[in-house]
Amino acid sequence: MFTERIYNFSAGPSMLPEEVLKTAASEMLNYKGTGTSVMEMSHRSKDFLAIFEETKSALKQTLGVPDSHDILFLQGGATLQFSMIPMNLISKTGKADYAITGNFSKLAAKEAKRYGEINIAADTEDQNNIYIPRQADLRLSGDASYFHYCDNNTIYGTEWDYVPVTGDVPLVCDMSSNILSKPIDVSKFGLIYAGAQKNMAPAGLTVVIMDKSLAGHAFDYTPIMLDYKTQIEKDSMHNTPSTYNIYILGLVLKWIASKGGLAGMAAYNEEKASILYNYLDESALFKGCAKRSARSLMNVTFVTGDADLDVAFAKEAAAKGLSNLKGHRNVGGMRASIYNAMPMEGMHALVAFMKEFEAKHR
Amino acid sequence: MFTERIYNFSAGPSMLPEEVLKTAASEMLNYKGTGTSVMEMSHRSKDFLAIFEETKSALKQTLGVPDSHDILFLQGGATLQFSMIPMNLISKTGKADYAITGNFSKLAAKEAKRYGEINIAADTEDQNNIYIPRQADLRLSGDASYFHYCDNNTIYGTEWDYVPVTGDVPLVCDMSSNILSKPIDVSKFGLIYAGAQKNMAPAGLTVVIMDKSLAGHAFDYTPIMLDYKTQIEKDSMHNTPSTYNIYILGLVLKWIASKGGLAGMAAYNEEKASILYNYLDESALFKGCAKRSARSLMNVTFVTGDADLDVAFAKEAAAKGLSNLKGHRNVGGMRASIYNAMPMEGMHALVAFMKEFEAKHR
Repeated sequence: MFTERIYNFSAGPSMLPEEVLKTAASEMLNYKGTGTSVMEMSHRSKDFLAIFEETKSALKQTLGVPDSHDILFLQGGATLQFSMIPMNLISKTGKADYAITGNFSKLAAKEAKRYGEINIAADTEDQNNIYIPRQADLRLSGDASYFHYCDNNTIYGTEWDYVPVTGDVPLVCDMSSNILSKPIDVSKFGLIYAGAQKNMAPAGLTVVIMDKSLAGHAFDYTPIMLDYKTQIEKDSMHNTPSTYNIYILGLVLKWIASKGGLAGMAAYNEEKASILYNYLDESALFKGCAKRSARSLMNVTFVTGDADLDVAFAKEAAAKGLSNLKGHRNVGGMRASIYNAMPMEGMHALVAFMKEFEAKHR
Repeated sequence: MFTERIYNFSAGPSMLPEEVLKTAASEMLNYKGTGTSVMEMSHRSKDFLAIFEETKSALKQTLGVPDSHDILFLQGGATLQFSMIPMNLISKTGKADYAITGNFSKLAAKEAKRYGEINIAADTEDQNNIYIPRQADLRLSGDASYFHYCDNNTIYGTEWDYVPVTGDVPLVCDMSSNILSKPIDVSKFGLIYAGAQKNMAPAGLTVVIMDKSLAGHAFDYTPIMLDYKTQIEKDSMHNTPSTYNIYILGLVLKWIASKGGLAGMAAYNEEKASILYNYLDESALFKGCAKRSARSLMNVTFVTGDADLDVAFAKEAAAKGLSNLKGHRNVGGMRASIYNAMPMEGMHALVAFMKEFEAKHR
C-alpha cells in the first residue's frame, strides 16, 4: 500500500505527468462549466470539437508538422498499423523495405509479408539487437514502396541516432516509444505512427502523421476504417474516435509546452538518462546492455550478470516504490523505462537504490 | 456555464453514472494504494490484470454469457466490426443475410458486400425506418454464413421487440446502443458486438461476445488484429487494449449491480421511457416518430411538425441544461437518448420543459 505516488518504470502503459492527472480528476464531473465530463461529450458536439481542434493544432505546432501532412487520431495500437501500412501503401510497387532492430519491427515485417514482397534492409538479431545499423549497411532494394523502421526499441533499449536516407522512397516510422521526447523533422517522413500509451495519453489512441499524398492506394479489400484516405477525408471521425484519450493528449501537450516544448523535453530526457547511464558505466555490479552509440533515452536496459540477482533487484525495488524494473521476458535482466513523464527525482531515487543494492551485493 | 451537472441526451458518447465518475476522479492519482493511476498501469501488471479479470467476469455474470462464448475487449468501434465480421465469418458459404432497419445496419451491409454475397433480408427504408420487420417478413436465404441485424436504431428510435429465429444460421447482432439495458439470452447469439460509448464506458472500447466455435475462418488477408481467433487466444491482449476504458466498464458494471442488475435496469429504463412516451401520446404539440411496437427504450424520436420550432426547442432546452436534443441530421426533429445512466429526474425535467414549451407554442 502506497500513500504517495510511486516511480513507475513500466515500458507502457506508463507514467503520465501528475499535473495532467490532477487536471483530469478535477474536470471529471464538470469540464469547464459544460456540466458534463469529457467522457460524456458527443464527438460531434461544439465542446468536444474545440478540444479536438485544440489538441490537433497543439500537436501540429509541437512537432512542427508541415501542411503537406495530416494528423490522424486512430485506434488499435501500433500493431494495427503493422497491417494498415501495407494495406494502404505497398500497392505502388508491391514491395517494401523493412529494417529489423527489435521485436516490434520484426512483427511489423512479418505482418507486412502477408501483403507484398518484403526486403529485409537490416537485421540486428545477429548481435541480439544491441546496436543500430549504420546508413551504409542498409540494404535498400531501390524499388520499395516505402522503408519501414522502428525508431526506439523498448525491449532492447536501443534508439536510432540518425534518420535513414532513402531517396524518393518514403520513410515510415514507428515512434510509439519516443514520440514527443525530442524535436524531429517531420518533413523527412512519409508516415509516422505511435501508440499513445508511452508519451502521449492512455492506451486506446494511435496517432498517425502522414503525407496526405500517400493516401488513396488501399487494396480493394482494405476495411473502410483502415483506409487512410477515409480517415483523412473524415478528419478521424468516420466513427467515434477515442475522445477521452484525445483530451488527455491535449493536457499532455500543454504540460510539454510548460517544460519548454520538445527542446526542453529533450534536454530533460538527456539529463535523466545520463544519470542512469553514467552510473552504469562506473558500477561494478550493473552493466548496460545496449551499445553506447545505440543507447535509448527512453528505455535503459541493464543486468548484473546473475539472473537470480536481477530478479531480487526488481522485487526489492518494487517494494520501495520503484516499480516495473523487470526486463522483458525475451531478454531478462532489468529495464527502466523513463519516458517524458518520469521526473528527475525518479532517476535519483533509482540510482540511490542501485548503489545501496550494489553495496550489499558486491 | 453550468455549476451543476446537466442532463445530457446525447446519442453517444453519452452520460455515465455520476457515482462512476466520482470514483474515477477519486482514484485518478492513486488507485487503491498502488501509487499509480489505472491509466499508467502496464496491461500485463498484476494490478491491471486483476481489474481486467474482474471486469470480464462481471460482464459474463451480468449478461449471463455461457461458457461456449468468450468476451473480447477490442478497439475501432462498431464500424470496424462491420469489416471484421465478414472478414472472419463469411467464408463458410460466401454469403450472409443482413436486415436493414436504419443507418448503421445499412452501413454494415454496404461494408460486408466487399467481402461476399449479401442478401438483404429486410429493409425498412420504405417507411423511413420507423418500424421493425416481423419474423414472417424476413427473407432468409437459407445458406447464409450468418444473419446480421442492429438491435436498436439510434437515429430512428426503433428497437427490435424480438430475437429473430434463423435456425442453424448464427445471429450476429450490433447492440451498441442497447447492450446492458435489459436482460438478454446470449446463448441465442453467435456474436454480439457493441461500441462502449452509450451504456458501458468512454469511446475507444468495443465489446465482442462470441461463440468461440465461430472463430478460425478468417480470410488470408484479414489483419492479425482483426482475427477473432488471435484475440480469443491472446485474451484480448495481442497488443495493449484500451485499459482505462475497461476499468470504467468495471465501475459501470458495479453500478448496474447496485441497481438490481439487468432486471433492475430494464424496469428503470421502461419507467423512464414511459414518462416521455406517455406525454408524447397525449401532447397536442409533440408527436413520437417510431411505430408503437418498434419504440426504443434508449432513443426517443419526436417532432412538432414545424422544423423551425424543433430547432427552437432544442436550443431553449440546451440553455436549461437539457442538452443534445436535436435529432440526427438525416431525419431532423428531436431525439432524447436516455441510456442507463440518464436518471429518472432527467426525464421529469425534460417533460416539464416540454409542457412549458407546449403551453407557449400551442
